[in-house]
Amino acid sequence: MHLTVYLSGEIHTDWRDEIASQAADLDVTFTAPVTDHAASDDCGVAILGAESDKFWHDRKGANLNAIRTRKAIEDADVVVVRFGEKYRQWNAAFDAGYAAALGKSLIILHQSDHAHALKEVDAAADAVCETPAQVVATLRYVLTGRLPG
Amino acid sequence: MHLTVYLSGEIHTDWRDEIASQAADLDVTFTAPVTDHAASDDCGVAILGAESDKFWHDRKGANLNAIRTRKAIEDADVVVVRFGEKYRQWNAAFDAGYAAALGKSLIILHQSDHAHALKEVDAAADAVCETPAQVVATLRYVLTGRLPG
Amino acid sequence: MHLTVYLSGEIHTDWRDEIASQAADLDVTFTAPVTDHAASDDCGVAILGAESDKFWHDRKGANLNAIRTRKAIEDADVVVVRFGEKYRQWNAAFDAGYAAALGKSLIILHQSDHAHALKEVDAAADAVCETPAQVVATLRYVLTGRLPG
Amino acid sequence: MHLTVYLSGEIHTDWRDEIASQAADLDVTFTAPVTDHAASDDCGVAILGAESDKFWHDRKGANLNAIRTRKAIEDADVVVVRFGEKYRQWNAAFDAGYAAALGKSLIILHQSDHAHALKEVDAAADAVCETPAQVVATLRYVLTGRLPG
Amino acid sequence: MHLTVYLSGEIHTDWRDEIASQAADLDVTFTAPVTDHAASDDCGVAILGAESDKFWHDRKGANLNAIRTRKAIEDADVVVVRFGEKYRQWNAAFDAGYAAALGKSLIILHQSDHAHALKEVDAAADAVCETPAQVVATLRYVLTGRLPG
Amino acid sequence: MHLTVYLSGEIHTDWRDEIASQAADLDVTFTAPVTDHAASDDCGVAILGAESDKFWHDRKGANLNAIRTRKAIEDADVVVVRFGEKYRQWNAAFDAGYAAALGKSLIILHQSDHAHALKEVDAAADAVCETPAQVVATLRYVLTGRLPG
Amino acid sequence: MHLTVYLSGEIHTDWRDEIASQAADLDVTFTAPVTDHAASDDCGVAILGAESDKFWHDRKGANLNAIRTRKAIEDADVVVVRFGEKYRQWNAAFDAGYAAALGKSLIILHQSDHAHALKEVDAAADAVCETPAQVVATLRYVLTGRLPG
Amino acid sequence: MHLTVYLSGEIHTDWRDEIASQAADLDVTFTAPVTDHAASDDCGVAILGAESDKFWHDRKGANLNAIRTRKAIEDADVVVVRFGEKYRQWNAAFDAGYAAALGKSLIILHQSDHAHALKEVDAAADAVCETPAQVVATLRYVLTGRLPG
Repeated sequence: MHLTVYLSGEIHTDWRDEIASQAADLDVTFTAPVTDHAASDDCGVAILGAESDKFWHDRKGANLNAIRTRKAIEDADVVVVRFGEKYRQWNAAFDAGYAAALGKSLIILHQSDHAHALKEVDAAADAVCETPAQVVATLRYVLTGRLPG
Repeated sequence: MHLTVYLSGEIHTDWRDEIASQAADLDVTFTAPVTDHAASDDCGVAILGAESDKFWHDRKGANLNAIRTRKAIEDADVVVVRFGEKYRQWNAAFDAGYAAALGKSLIILHQSDHAHALKEVDAAADAVCETPAQVVATLRYVLTGRLPG
Repeated sequence: MHLTVYLSGEIHTDWRDEIASQAADLDVTFTAPVTDHAASDDCGVAILGAESDKFWHDRKGANLNAIRTRKAIEDADVVVVRFGEKYRQWNAAFDAGYAAALGKSLIILHQSDHAHALKEVDAAADAVCETPAQVVATLRYVLTGRLPG
Repeated sequence: MHLTVYLSGEIHTDWRDEIASQAADLDVTFTAPVTDHAASDDCGVAILGAESDKFWHDRKGANLNAIRTRKAIEDADVVVVRFGEKYRQWNAAFDAGYAAALGKSLIILHQSDHAHALKEVDAAADAVCETPAQVVATLRYVLTGRLPG
Repeated sequence: MHLTVYLSGEIHTDWRDEIASQAADLDVTFTAPVTDHAASDDCGVAILGAESDKFWHDRKGANLNAIRTRKAIEDADVVVVRFGEKYRQWNAAFDAGYAAALGKSLIILHQSDHAHALKEVDAAADAVCETPAQVVATLRYVLTGRLPG
Repeated sequence: MHLTVYLSGEIHTDWRDEIASQAADLDVTFTAPVTDHAASDDCGVAILGAESDKFWHDRKGANLNAIRTRKAIEDADVVVVRFGEKYRQWNAAFDAGYAAALGKSLIILHQSDHAHALKEVDAAADAVCETPAQVVATLRYVLTGRLPG
Repeated sequence: MHLTVYLSGEIHTDWRDEIASQAADLDVTFTAPVTDHAASDDCGVAILGAESDKFWHDRKGANLNAIRTRKAIEDADVVVVRFGEKYRQWNAAFDAGYAAALGKSLIILHQSDHAHALKEVDAAADAVCETPAQVVATLRYVLTGRLPG
Repeated sequence: MHLTVYLSGEIHTDWRDEIASQAADLDVTFTAPVTDHAASDDCGVAILGAESDKFWHDRKGANLNAIRTRKAIEDADVVVVRFGEKYRQWNAAFDAGYAAALGKSLIILHQSDHAHALKEVDAAADAVCETPAQVVATLRYVLTGRLPG
């Protein structure tokens, strides 16, 4: 069994690298959004031309990023969504809803003090993790049946 | 033409009533989540039995609320998602993503200073409104072709 | 909001009547399989001609019952599956799997000592109830937001 | 033609190995659930943290196992479900219903004295086998057109 | 429960009337193709203009009839396909295949000496009947649970 | 049989009225886009606020009109697309492609000298008409089996 | 571009070999049903045990063959259905209907004197051919843009 | 991440080559319609036999081309549709609508003076480009996160 896993959400820490390096022995292909915050914000106007109105500046960029996100979620067997400590992260929750509607397996990764605010998102998930190591252990178990320790 | 419109998101102001009363002349059926915050939080344990662990207390409730939300979104022609000024409102963004993946028409309602944080959500929408009156004017135009004023 | 609810599973107690009478005030349409055990077993040969081999006797009947079950599950918003104390009830679990794959909201009704054996089925459900009254309270909450007591 | 075949159900005998060894000459990829009973029961708490309540202990595990099962059924061309002599095996019947709703080809494997209890499940199947050898002969015929003997 | 039943196939005997009159007490809506053979053959050119080539004469008509057939099959809960004694009736078998692919419940009606030639079609059906009365008895059982006699 | 028919395309002649009046005896519900050209062009800025850039002025309006079009096409059994003598009418061809991909029955209405330019669109259609009267005759035949004259 | 092409229908002439040899230069994978008539008729009882009733003898075999047919049609980009000079060939028409409902590209191959009887089937097709060479020329054009001669 | 990109629309300039050569470093597979105008117009009669009526001459060809187009759009992650300066290009708009209904990511390529006429098509797109270089920059960003310059 091989898994394609989309790592959605928070882009300011190295959690994707942690997961990828701990999962190096597993038959997993990881995908991710563009994690360069500035590029992600400005891609639309950089490629398609400047906008004087910030709203359309943002729209153009969000539309381009959506091409990648849509492809990645549709190709994924499992979507991992990480909610970090900062920012509103509505796009992370949007991705989780999008993935849930497509029937994807969903793993939510967040610190415990976000549990109440994320209860509807967690309820759609197959696993709620607090650490990248738990995400990797989940994937390892799903693929190999092996438990940690 | 008749529209079924699900009013998702913020539950602490009377925006749903505003929309419903202004749209009283339109051929629209509005649906909504349970908007009693306490009932919504505690429904699971009230019906299915107490939980000592807050996480499962929340899970039981979120699961029950999901029955209503899933039905309402699937039956909707248009999903309106309001982001208010307070709280993280991840369930609102989750609903937006869920509705987008099902191909529903999407109207996002928020104040302008949330525009950057909601850019991915707005990019999936057919209309971005700042007031309930704009939502109603949108529905009126869609149904009747009449413009405001 | 109106709900169509299919009551699947055990046919030797009056749990369907209990639910229907307690839910008489709700905007719900209940559907059910044929609950006359003898008719359900013999319908195939009674209508389409006798079979000497019990296997095909059963097959003919199961095929006819499947017309009703398929229609009822596909039309349902919520599928309630009751596991009783007796019999193997594999058709109940089959219906639960079928409904889950179609994305139906699922309520499982069983006594607590079946919980471990039903853990995979329960994990696909939005609510796990022990009594018909809990099923009705769940439907009442979903439809009206009102809690018991 | 190549077939992906998910071997669902009973985990206490070596029927999967029998099938795989007899089918070694065929262009088939077999998948299976985690067949280590203890790991399957405890994976949730082992990875995501202990639960004092057995119900949630079971839920966490069932949710993790569902990631693997969902992936395997969705990827399968054929789902073989074996009902053994012991246990209630509701998860096997659940898998059969899930696979049937997705339109998968279904082969049910059970001893003849379970035939009446499994009549609804058998009626959804393309083949009802009593031995692993019959399952392999079915796959061999489907792939190559060759009959036994 | 209400059923919409499409009566496909043979158009030279009054089997549709037989079924409708015997089922007058049932909550069923019957639909049918245009059963006026001449109109069905010539509708295309009568409405859209003459064709000198018989192939395109037929094509124009078949395309118009397909509008009705597609609508009727898609709206049906049950598709009954009757194979008569004469003609090749490939359109009947085509309808059966179309309905099967959409997951419709299928009832095949034919005399017993066609059984071998129709074995693949029958194998996709929930019931194989020899008389209109058996079709009605099947619908009556599905809707009411009552058996004949 | 009842048909819902979406009348897409050209908005500068009264062809929709012609069809509706000639089809007054038929069990058809007609839907249409907003046919007030000015309203259709300006709805976005009239409701959601002015734009200095014509591109976004148009975008806002097109998005609102898409809510109505999407709803109308998805609800339709038959989509009629009329190509008039003037303008590029790319939205008409877009609607035709959208409807075709959803498996809707398609009737294309255009003068004969557009036939070569529309050959790909016509090839996806069940009927190609030159006059509104032919569209009505088609719908009458589909619903009643009656031919003109 | 690569095409997977299922060659359905008549099994008593070597038309499949003709197509395969003429298409040897093309990037096509051909699939086919089991074309050994005796094996196809008897596979069910040969593998799963004898039946005294010819109806169930046929059913068991048809069910096994359906596993292969379903897989082949679902995997196909193009389904070619050949109607020969003999036999009723209802399974060929059934396959055509099944493929059409799944939105597959359809090529029908038959002699011209069957054209009227096959008009509904032909109307669902992208190409109607009279010779295997025309089927190959169609596939060659689709893949390479090259025309014959 | 790998992308399959269908390049639809205008066939009289070398824009496809421009895109392919500029994107030579990217993990993209490009597909296209048959771009030989004469072959595309005459393929039907060249392969399947002459027609005296131009309408059916065109129909036969359009049907063959549809096999390729349908396959290419269904396999595509991204559909790029170019509207050139000449011709009505209704097939380009048809492809855009078809792709939009299937949920494909859509990039529209046209000169700015077509913007108003294409506003409904543009509104369904993720990016509106004026040059092939912008299309390539969009694909490069989606695949690698790198911006131009």
